[in-house]
Amino acid sequence: MAVRKYAIGIDIGGTKTAGVLIDRDGNIHARVKRPTPVRDGPNATIDLVSECIRELEAGSPGGVAGIGIGVAAMTDSRRGVVILASNLKWENVPLRDEVIKRLGDEWAERVWVDKDTNAAALAEMFYGVARGARHVLYVTIGTGIGGGMILDGRLYHGATEGAGDIGHLVLEPEGPQCGCGKRGCLEALASGPAILREALAALDRGEETSLRQFDPQDMTAEHVAMAALNGDELARKLFTRAGQYIGAALAYYADINNPEMIVLGGGVSAVGDLLAAPIRETIRQRALPGNAEAAKVVLAGLGQDSGAIGAASLVWHNAGKGD
Amino acid sequence: MAVRKYAIGIDIGGTKTAGVLIDRDGNIHARVKRPTPVRDGPNATIDLVSECIRELEAGSPGGVAGIGIGVAAMTDSRRGVVILASNLKWENVPLRDEVIKRLGDEWAERVWVDKDTNAAALAEMFYGVARGARHVLYVTIGTGIGGGMILDGRLYHGATEGAGDIGHLVLEPEGPQCGCGKRGCLEALASGPAILREALAALDRGEETSLRQFDPQDMTAEHVAMAALNGDELARKLFTRAGQYIGAALAYYADINNPEMIVLGGGVSAVGDLLAAPIRETIRQRALPGNAEAAKVVLAGLGQDSGAIGAASLVWHNAGKGD
Repeated sequence: MAVRKYAIGIDIGGTKTAGVLIDRDGNIHARVKRPTPVRDGPNATIDLVSECIRELEAGSPGGVAGIGIGVAAMTDSRRGVVILASNLKWENVPLRDEVIKRLGDEWAERVWVDKDTNAAALAEMFYGVARGARHVLYVTIGTGIGGGMILDGRLYHGATEGAGDIGHLVLEPEGPQCGCGKRGCLEALASGPAILREALAALDRGEETSLRQFDPQDMTAEHVAMAALNGDELARKLFTRAGQYIGAALAYYADINNPEMIVLGGGVSAVGDLLAAPIRETIRQRALPGNAEAAKVVLAGLGQDSGAIGAASLVWHNAGKGD
Repeated sequence: MAVRKYAIGIDIGGTKTAGVLIDRDGNIHARVKRPTPVRDGPNATIDLVSECIRELEAGSPGGVAGIGIGVAAMTDSRRGVVILASNLKWENVPLRDEVIKRLGDEWAERVWVDKDTNAAALAEMFYGVARGARHVLYVTIGTGIGGGMILDGRLYHGATEGAGDIGHLVLEPEGPQCGCGKRGCLEALASGPAILREALAALDRGEETSLRQFDPQDMTAEHVAMAALNGDELARKLFTRAGQYIGAALAYYADINNPEMIVLGGGVSAVGDLLAAPIRETIRQRALPGNAEAAKVVLAGLGQDSGAIGAASLVWHNAGKGD
């Protein structure tokens, strides 16, 4: 039997599904990318995922140790089930078993499913900015805010797979409505949509800003980010404020779990230190000195293939790095 | 060689040092209790601890698997060092090595030191209300507020032994001064001294309460607790308010670590549901529904020997329950 030195990783997103074949050093040996057929239902997407896997495996028959699949969703990693993926419109989809059904029983025990933030956390620990660290929080700040937790070198899922939900820590009980039904969650205060909302409110109030050049109806959080990077004062203030909220939540995380590294990912983090600096400052003010000092805040290091690389990392994590 | 079926546990407190010899089922076969000679310095206390251990071991020579020592302190469990114990006035005391030096090298690798809240968490998991649970937070609410974390059945210490510091989560950034230097920490809002402070302030404001029978200078948090248990409205409100603050902090814990059980211990928790009910209600309001539902809030189950039993549990935890 060939040495199984490759892992396949599939990242199922709301618009595209991306896959990679990587070796243990994280080198990419094959890539695949397809539009996700969201409207055709879960089975169409699972068919597509299985095709992508066969295509990626073709280059190294018998050489693939396993398959990792990351989904932007609430997942039950123990059973390989996607509990709820709002962008895919999936509910209780037994993704692992369906993939094994399509690929054949020789893949049983070698397919792993997890939420995309957990995959991203692993990717950063195996191949990114968190190499060598064993206590890592990966935070994605984009349309939503979520976390992937690594404790003592292992992904941590909690008692009922609900761990790492930092986007819904309530920081302002009387604050803006969150999609989850509560008010003042971190996500309602510091996500991309929250930053856009505050920018539009500032325009409404007549504040001076270069954002006035845009039609408010077409404006996005990316416009606010570009304005901030170009020195717009109002836009910078909005990212500072978001960073302060994120820092307050991460200070709680630091005092509870004492991580050595917090990795910032997701679209909003593309503004870099405009967001990272107030996060670091707020953690320093709010957490205990020892815990604040231990928790190094860094920007995610992996580029466009990070989702699929993270998914592939689930294989090394779950099957072990040795053969 | 005799089967090592016993464990010795020592709980070093600011006023007394207590020890037990227990078997694997938690039955106590011998007890010892002495005043802690705090004023004579660390060496005097370590001498006393070693004497207590010898006395406890005398009943079962060769039958003791190991020794666990719990201290109300910041500890470095990996090195067995007490970093800071304010009530003992200890700083950087290499407790484990000093005990082994006194007992002899046959005890090397068989002495474990940890903070008392971690010992208490283990005691509840092995012998108390958390039997069968694998994701447990033990919270002590007394003069201070602290936590002991069990994740996936193991004590969790964090990257630099700072995990579980829930007493210093900042809930009111402009709130009352905390001993740690920050403002509005949970401990400054809901500990015994905080409850007493609020009771005295209410007396000053002339509020109606049975507490008026006491000389304010002699009043303690225990008086407020007794008044609450006897139906005093003001005293009850103070415990409700403390419970709401504790619940807010525990909701953060629930969304971050998704525990299945939160055990309330410490002197203030003696008021029972007067504190536990608002804690449960606030977690329900603040945490995500799945995480709130998973996190059962219960009162600590072990009685007066719990500190020493918890310390002994460190032996089973670290040496394994099998021989």
